[in-house]
Amino acid sequence: MDAQKYALEYKKVLTQNVLPFWLEHGMDKKNGGIYTALDKDGSVLDSDKSVWFQGRAQWAFATAYVEIEECEDYLTACESLSNFSQRHCFDTDGRMFFRVSADGKPVIKRLRYFFSETFAIIGAAAYSRALQKASKHEDAEAQRRYAWELFQKMEEIRTSDVLLPKFNQENAPSRGFGVPMILLNTAQELRKALPEKKDILNQYIDDLLDDIKRYFIRPELKCVLEQCAPDGTIQSDHFEGRLLNPGHALEGSWFIMNEARYRNSSELLELGTTMLDWMWDIGWDKEYGGIIYFKDALNKSATEYWHDMKFWWPQCEAVIANLMAYTLTKNETYKERFILADEYARKNFLDTEDGEWYGYLHRDGRLSTPLKGNMYKGPFHIPRMYIVGCELLR
Amino acid sequence: MDAQKYALEYKKVLTQNVLPFWLEHGMDKKNGGIYTALDKDGSVLDSDKSVWFQGRAQWAFATAYVEIEECEDYLTACESLSNFSQRHCFDTDGRMFFRVSADGKPVIKRLRYFFSETFAIIGAAAYSRALQKASKHEDAEAQRRYAWELFQKMEEIRTSDVLLPKFNQENAPSRGFGVPMILLNTAQELRKALPEKKDILNQYIDDLLDDIKRYFIRPELKCVLEQCAPDGTIQSDHFEGRLLNPGHALEGSWFIMNEARYRNSSELLELGTTMLDWMWDIGWDKEYGGIIYFKDALNKSATEYWHDMKFWWPQCEAVIANLMAYTLTKNETYKERFILADEYARKNFLDTEDGEWYGYLHRDGRLSTPLKGNMYKGPFHIPRMYIVGCELLR
Repeated sequence: MDAQKYALEYKKVLTQNVLPFWLEHGMDKKNGGIYTALDKDGSVLDSDKSVWFQGRAQWAFATAYVEIEECEDYLTACESLSNFSQRHCFDTDGRMFFRVSADGKPVIKRLRYFFSETFAIIGAAAYSRALQKASKHEDAEAQRRYAWELFQKMEEIRTSDVLLPKFNQENAPSRGFGVPMILLNTAQELRKALPEKKDILNQYIDDLLDDIKRYFIRPELKCVLEQCAPDGTIQSDHFEGRLLNPGHALEGSWFIMNEARYRNSSELLELGTTMLDWMWDIGWDKEYGGIIYFKDALNKSATEYWHDMKFWWPQCEAVIANLMAYTLTKNETYKERFILADEYARKNFLDTEDGEWYGYLHRDGRLSTPLKGNMYKGPFHIPRMYIVGCELLR
Repeated sequence: MDAQKYALEYKKVLTQNVLPFWLEHGMDKKNGGIYTALDKDGSVLDSDKSVWFQGRAQWAFATAYVEIEECEDYLTACESLSNFSQRHCFDTDGRMFFRVSADGKPVIKRLRYFFSETFAIIGAAAYSRALQKASKHEDAEAQRRYAWELFQKMEEIRTSDVLLPKFNQENAPSRGFGVPMILLNTAQELRKALPEKKDILNQYIDDLLDDIKRYFIRPELKCVLEQCAPDGTIQSDHFEGRLLNPGHALEGSWFIMNEARYRNSSELLELGTTMLDWMWDIGWDKEYGGIIYFKDALNKSATEYWHDMKFWWPQCEAVIANLMAYTLTKNETYKERFILADEYARKNFLDTEDGEWYGYLHRDGRLSTPLKGNMYKGPFHIPRMYIVGCELLR
């Protein structure tokens, strides 16, 4: 494996194909912010804006600026995203919307989640690092302060009773893996921007890792549960309790390996690679290649009818997780899997004609829809794969 | 076409395959009510109960009793469903839940809808007719009274501000086709059980038909919109505004043809058959057969990644709509389409081994998951197809 060649290729696709697609077609020159609901050729399919993606795109452009290339367009995009988000994406109660109109009027507010907030936090944290690198120290400081304040506000929301959970928590209590996983990444990104908060954030991360280990890691089933009972047991008589999401678990596995790297912890490395091994075995399609979307933990009939489709983002997570595991362990199995996952994504998802990846394939690799984005797909997982990949390959 | 042969076959599949599957595996002998999350062989995949299906199953068993066969088991099932629903499916505010536990504890309450209520209404209305036929006049009267009271309660909910719409109605106002369509069917079923309320219900239906004609029928696009702007124009710059749901529109088309039959109205027959013609052209898959799930009204890239799958219920609606159109117009095209849709469903969905239909096929007819039910699939569309089919074929 020629790491140098891979690194060059990753940088090239990121800076000449993926990010330009979003800069050219996504960024809204009139109102600010980004459209993500784009067709194959970049034309706008839906003029509403995803609040998640105002933060996620900010993260992607800012991190590319810090880690890959000091391109002025990335900073300009971040400024537009940051202003649009701060001006238009907050309700009067301090919580963020989920979807706003082109000119920033509220369209949908999610009652159960605080993920608009987490993505705004990592967007601001990364932007502060980019501004720092561009020697705009005052602006960097303002973004840092903003990220920290929003983190505290998010914690307030999360630990209060303003959220309306989907399931009645008295009669059907459960824990979701998504929450500690996304919070782990949020805290890691925040720590990069605010080194002075390191101790608080390390403690916060310790608690999240404890939760993940205690509740979601199930050695007797060799899997990471996506949802479990409050005590961590599998809710085997419910669809949601048996549902495995390999892409999600692979994403979590490399957040944990990243933490292992930061802390030089062999115990965390062991945890991350174990999660990766289990969920690769469950998720990788040995017949057609690619990571499928859902599996049933007890091998019962799938509940979601599109369970065997190949989405873009689980492939990104499989690439990063295996490359990171290889970098940290030098175990050749991970190298082979990285090559497999990378090749699958390149051949099946990348559009070298109009730029960016497709998002949705049938199990056998046929395209389901040629669109490039919507309220859930935009510049995040794919740029992150190339950015983290470059860093690991160097 | 040998109508007699079809009628015998429809009755046989309904009474010897479909309803027995649900009676045997779905009905909960311990707690009452019905489980619908069943695997291929009828084993329970999720022990929660769908509130929609406590009402919908009641409708199916009761209507089969009235229209097809006076089977005591159907009445017993209705009693169990009715008791479970009345005892366990209502919140203290008078609204119904969406999902409850096996023993009837609240699990999910939907904040946007009143469809649990509409299905409880048609369940009680049909049950009252079955009880009447069984000469249980007092019980029939109680069910009639209950259905009417719940209809008024549902109207109160629908026209008040207790529901929380998904989209901000100030900035992103819209109308959904599902609402007048389901209310139309609710009023039609109620009218059968409460002939003394005929005048009120006819007026109510007139208003719904006006809404459907005014807002959702788009001759310039030759389609029935699933969602539109408040004035009926297409919301062409939004995914949801361009989304066509052929199965839904076909269902609406035969509710309207049924009304044409009731009123002997050639104008309504013209409306129903026009809806059918448009949406058959859009929805029928000329390559593989079957009605696909979603299409884009302006032929832009599909937004839902599973848009081209074949679900059970749109096939049921295509069968009924074409058979009804043929019965009312004698136009041979509808006969041919009925034969096509019926054959597609029989070959691809019906499980002659364990009973009941499968629910979810890939576009080319391959099974996506072999389960027979979940919170959205249970005894409703399929029994209804056989019941209404028998009636039309006689």
